[in-house]
Amino acid sequence: MDKLSNLAKFKSTCPFLGRTKTSTLRTLCTSASPRFPTVSKLTEKATKCPVMGPALQIRSKQMVAGYASLAGSAEFAKIPEHQGIKPSAVDAQKCPHASKAIAAARMAEELAQAKKAKAAKAAAAAAAKPATAAPAACPFHATSASEAKPKAKTPGGFDYEKFYAEELEKKHKDASYRYFNNINRLANKFPIAHTGNVKDEVEVWCANDYLGMGNNPVVLETMHRTLDTYGHGAGGTRNIAGNTGMHLALEEELASLHRKPAALVFSSCYVANDATLATLGSKLPGCVYFSDSMNHASMIQGMRHSGAKRVIFKHNDLQDLEMKLAQYPKETPKIIAFESVYSMCGSVGPIKEICDLAEQYGALTFLDEVHAVGLYGPRGAGVAEHLDYDIHKAAGQSPDPIKGTIMDRIDIITGTLGKAYGAVGGYIAGSNDFVDMIRSYAAGFIFTTSLPPVNMAGARASISYQKEYNGDRQLKQLNVRDLKSRFEALDIPVIPGPSHIVPVLVGDPALARLASDTLLAKHNVYVQAINYPTVARGEERLRFTVTPGHNVEQIARLARAVDQTFTELGIKRTSDWAKLGGHAGVGVADPKDVKPVWSDEQLGLHDGTAPAVLHPGQKRVVDQRAVQVTREKFNDLLGPYVEPTAASPEVLKAELPLSAPLAASIPAAVAAASA
Amino acid sequence: MDKLSNLAKFKSTCPFLGRTKTSTLRTLCTSASPRFPTVSKLTEKATKCPVMGPALQIRSKQMVAGYASLAGSAEFAKIPEHQGIKPSAVDAQKCPHASKAIAAARMAEELAQAKKAKAAKAAAAAAAKPATAAPAACPFHATSASEAKPKAKTPGGFDYEKFYAEELEKKHKDASYRYFNNINRLANKFPIAHTGNVKDEVEVWCANDYLGMGNNPVVLETMHRTLDTYGHGAGGTRNIAGNTGMHLALEEELASLHRKPAALVFSSCYVANDATLATLGSKLPGCVYFSDSMNHASMIQGMRHSGAKRVIFKHNDLQDLEMKLAQYPKETPKIIAFESVYSMCGSVGPIKEICDLAEQYGALTFLDEVHAVGLYGPRGAGVAEHLDYDIHKAAGQSPDPIKGTIMDRIDIITGTLGKAYGAVGGYIAGSNDFVDMIRSYAAGFIFTTSLPPVNMAGARASISYQKEYNGDRQLKQLNVRDLKSRFEALDIPVIPGPSHIVPVLVGDPALARLASDTLLAKHNVYVQAINYPTVARGEERLRFTVTPGHNVEQIARLARAVDQTFTELGIKRTSDWAKLGGHAGVGVADPKDVKPVWSDEQLGLHDGTAPAVLHPGQKRVVDQRAVQVTREKFNDLLGPYVEPTAASPEVLKAELPLSAPLAASIPAAVAAASA
Repeated sequence: MDKLSNLAKFKSTCPFLGRTKTSTLRTLCTSASPRFPTVSKLTEKATKCPVMGPALQIRSKQMVAGYASLAGSAEFAKIPEHQGIKPSAVDAQKCPHASKAIAAARMAEELAQAKKAKAAKAAAAAAAKPATAAPAACPFHATSASEAKPKAKTPGGFDYEKFYAEELEKKHKDASYRYFNNINRLANKFPIAHTGNVKDEVEVWCANDYLGMGNNPVVLETMHRTLDTYGHGAGGTRNIAGNTGMHLALEEELASLHRKPAALVFSSCYVANDATLATLGSKLPGCVYFSDSMNHASMIQGMRHSGAKRVIFKHNDLQDLEMKLAQYPKETPKIIAFESVYSMCGSVGPIKEICDLAEQYGALTFLDEVHAVGLYGPRGAGVAEHLDYDIHKAAGQSPDPIKGTIMDRIDIITGTLGKAYGAVGGYIAGSNDFVDMIRSYAAGFIFTTSLPPVNMAGARASISYQKEYNGDRQLKQLNVRDLKSRFEALDIPVIPGPSHIVPVLVGDPALARLASDTLLAKHNVYVQAINYPTVARGEERLRFTVTPGHNVEQIARLARAVDQTFTELGIKRTSDWAKLGGHAGVGVADPKDVKPVWSDEQLGLHDGTAPAVLHPGQKRVVDQRAVQVTREKFNDLLGPYVEPTAASPEVLKAELPLSAPLAASIPAAVAAASA
Repeated sequence: MDKLSNLAKFKSTCPFLGRTKTSTLRTLCTSASPRFPTVSKLTEKATKCPVMGPALQIRSKQMVAGYASLAGSAEFAKIPEHQGIKPSAVDAQKCPHASKAIAAARMAEELAQAKKAKAAKAAAAAAAKPATAAPAACPFHATSASEAKPKAKTPGGFDYEKFYAEELEKKHKDASYRYFNNINRLANKFPIAHTGNVKDEVEVWCANDYLGMGNNPVVLETMHRTLDTYGHGAGGTRNIAGNTGMHLALEEELASLHRKPAALVFSSCYVANDATLATLGSKLPGCVYFSDSMNHASMIQGMRHSGAKRVIFKHNDLQDLEMKLAQYPKETPKIIAFESVYSMCGSVGPIKEICDLAEQYGALTFLDEVHAVGLYGPRGAGVAEHLDYDIHKAAGQSPDPIKGTIMDRIDIITGTLGKAYGAVGGYIAGSNDFVDMIRSYAAGFIFTTSLPPVNMAGARASISYQKEYNGDRQLKQLNVRDLKSRFEALDIPVIPGPSHIVPVLVGDPALARLASDTLLAKHNVYVQAINYPTVARGEERLRFTVTPGHNVEQIARLARAVDQTFTELGIKRTSDWAKLGGHAGVGVADPKDVKPVWSDEQLGLHDGTAPAVLHPGQKRVVDQRAVQVTREKFNDLLGPYVEPTAASPEVLKAELPLSAPLAASIPAAVAAASA
């Protein structure tokens, strides 16, 4: 409603607006300004206009008040005052609507100043070059002239711009159009981020930096050193100048992590899955894929791109899988593609049982451990490792395969460096010839610049640290249990599952988005709504990720905030779903007993070795032994570590209580420091 | 021969080797050890064996002498002595064969020490857990047991490992199997890199860090600051917690660079091309692609993945293109996909003429500027910008489209951050609705963790610096001209072209690889051989990339080294090809006049503003005004820049003569410092 009335207002004010196509205006309305992401491009353009600019500047101040009251200004008084911003302004920024008006006002002021100089310059430039005919007097005019050029380039030709607009309209209509929040996670304030305004801070509850390794001191220290030594980009493909010691060492670390002979790193795990499945399926003669119905988009794309036949089996349904496997001759190449932790519902694949079926029917197993590596197993190798927890723990850091273990029986493991390891990139691990074949044939691996050495070093430091230190994984699970039990006590509908994922059912796309907006605006809580196509229609949810860096007070406050939001928006509780016969596993009559992957014993709850939860003001534990072991792995390339001095990274100074040259035998401990 | 005799020796020595499949042994022989890339995995495994280890340690010392003499030890005396390594050892490292033996010896020593502790630990672990039945007494045994497990998991099932081995065998047979060189480009010694041995330094002549921006001081400074502020990974997809101010600012910088309304960043330009073309072609009803025959693999994949019809036109052949366009109705959606600079031959697409045809036949233009961004145009926006050099220069840094320019007429521009910008990632730029549609529909964009803020910041700093400073681009082209003319004077067959690429024809895959090996072994020159499938069979070449960071002495020495290598290996010269009637553009009877994209005037050769070439010992120019402009762009997110002190990055200290707080008006100059 508001958008339309604004548009009408603009149209009547601006003599040039009539010439602009409605589709263009609509896009300008719905696209965020790159500079000021909380306002639309149309508003940004309007501030540049000599007529609209000043008008908007006045109006925006009125809007702040108006929108703020709409959003329920009673709560705003509670929000603490931030440096240098008036409480009313801060409050309004929490409101997704009011924040737009504020940003517009700020922008209008900034741009008014910049415009004078620019207009003079543009005029001079225009005079110098006839090609820039339309001067920048009214940016609406200038832009609409360029935007509104005949899109059908030749009479009778196809109108591409119209087509794009129609495709976008579909997204708007079914409410699947995505507005990206501007979230900047602060290394020194984990799990806090600032929004588009650096002074506006929120708590992040949905990032996949599951362990907070993106700000681990030994990771950042290693990256600073690598940056100084090797600079930024890799400078080439792996074949041409882009194959560095950091890549090779990372791949060795990954192979060793999974106790596989070889590993290979890709730009992302999306690319790893896509390239590997596309290559395998197109190479293996008559290959048939057996794909879990909940598999990630990257696996689906890879299988599609292979051109191979794809048989979909019901999520985690072994009977269905076996029935489908049995329909093909034994000699037919088959690949069972599935995941360990399904990221949107938190279910866990029956890995052992799928290995049994694969062996029985002669199929390869392709296991995506993207949401599990770093988080499961005594060394963080994933759920496949976790299933033989004691065996892998006893084997220490030996890289050799352990015959008969689930991890050994899986043929192909894929994982990411971008989630629990807090880095970037993806990988595959498997037999030498398998990895070498993908290395030799997969276009998505061969023809692309390799990731920078600095990121490879950071990823390796993270993996190494997590291989040596179990406490982050344990604390994460303890925090997950804490949050889940608080939600359950408050009748908040957690979709049951054995993993670290905490999906809370909302069951309606608009309501899910509104809940997300409300949590952000009123409670400083950032949790993204998960809507179609990421989840099925009617199963829209909020997906919380709890890390070892969230303290008990934050967890308790989150539970209260969600409770309050559910009440305020009238979102169904577990008991409501139960009355309806249950939905998406919530409130079902006869729930299956869900046993968490991490047992009480593995969490150290039996022998008192469980890590302590964080209390407000406490810094996270940094395990000095893991730091030391990790550091030494880089001696060959970066030289021995030299203690930082005054001007070295703030993070290190803040989190690592470094003293004198690090002794060789730092105790395996746990240097918790309170602020 | 040698490999086979080694294998026979191993087999007769090791009681367990007989059990290992020949294909496995072959792979172990041909796969490089991740830890010691210059030796095979078989050699690495052998050093772990209690029997073979010591034997190898003795043998490897004999091998050093043997191989070194084979490779022509006369030249080795000339190589300067490196710190702490005997000249004979250094010399041998230049030889790709002898270096293996040295590495093996070093490794055997290291591993012998590590093994004792490990063996004790492994034995203890094995005792604790029955699943790890095979102890690590002989690693050959342990590994071969696991490697040699029945590959057909079920009797009558498909043998996957055999299949992989066969696919690899094909690569070995047609000499297209790739061995990756271990190259670590040193930020402080550009264009020098070390190999697998940190003390073994070589000159890099084939990296795509075309301007050396991977070690530009303002890039590294910005990255250090971003790392401290935001940590490592983005922590999520763009939709969920992975959309930061650094991403938005980079996309704004890119849109402004190309004077397009919008831009979107992907994991790589491979992904950008693949995802964009796949999405467009599958969405546009009945879309037909018109694809230049030399297009990059990523574009070919994207078009294939779209499922749309693909018509291939002869490389840069406008007649052929028009003939093919004319065969389709006007209203059919069409996309002409092509490149500005073709990276392997250095040819340049007829951009203006293709725009004309596109407008005439109602086609979209999709231009890949991957090998051109940063290098062409007054602000580095690519060849499309370069074609209207003066207009774009006069318009300064205005982000607005300039109607009628070639860059404005191109609908879709794709580019990389990983080559001239020395970073990582790729992007598209175009209209708002086009970019928004790809953002909303392309799976390869949506379902992947976004690149880390630190890399986005580094990329943006690089683009910003290059937008402001023209000298690196000019100096690069001057150096290219220098090298090309030296090659021509020496009758070395440069494939003619108007761009910065310097392809030297060899015309035989084995000879090309041998030339590359010889240059590395004898001259410290790293240039990768480019063989099929990257180029057509019979057109194998060495592809040199010259940067502004290569000094005149290095260029002169390179020309001599290539000359000497051509003589030594009997590789055909330009005059030889001419006698055969010419080949791949070399030595043709009636050569077309090739005019360089950069004119003498644009290089500053007419008015004396051309940048000075580097002489040995001189540091590269760092433009202080461009640094200052770039730095200020990060004030909003990183705060004002604070001068580094003692412990700050070496690169900054070495290259940026920073004094006192930087004054607002640093002259646009050129702080060349001699060492």
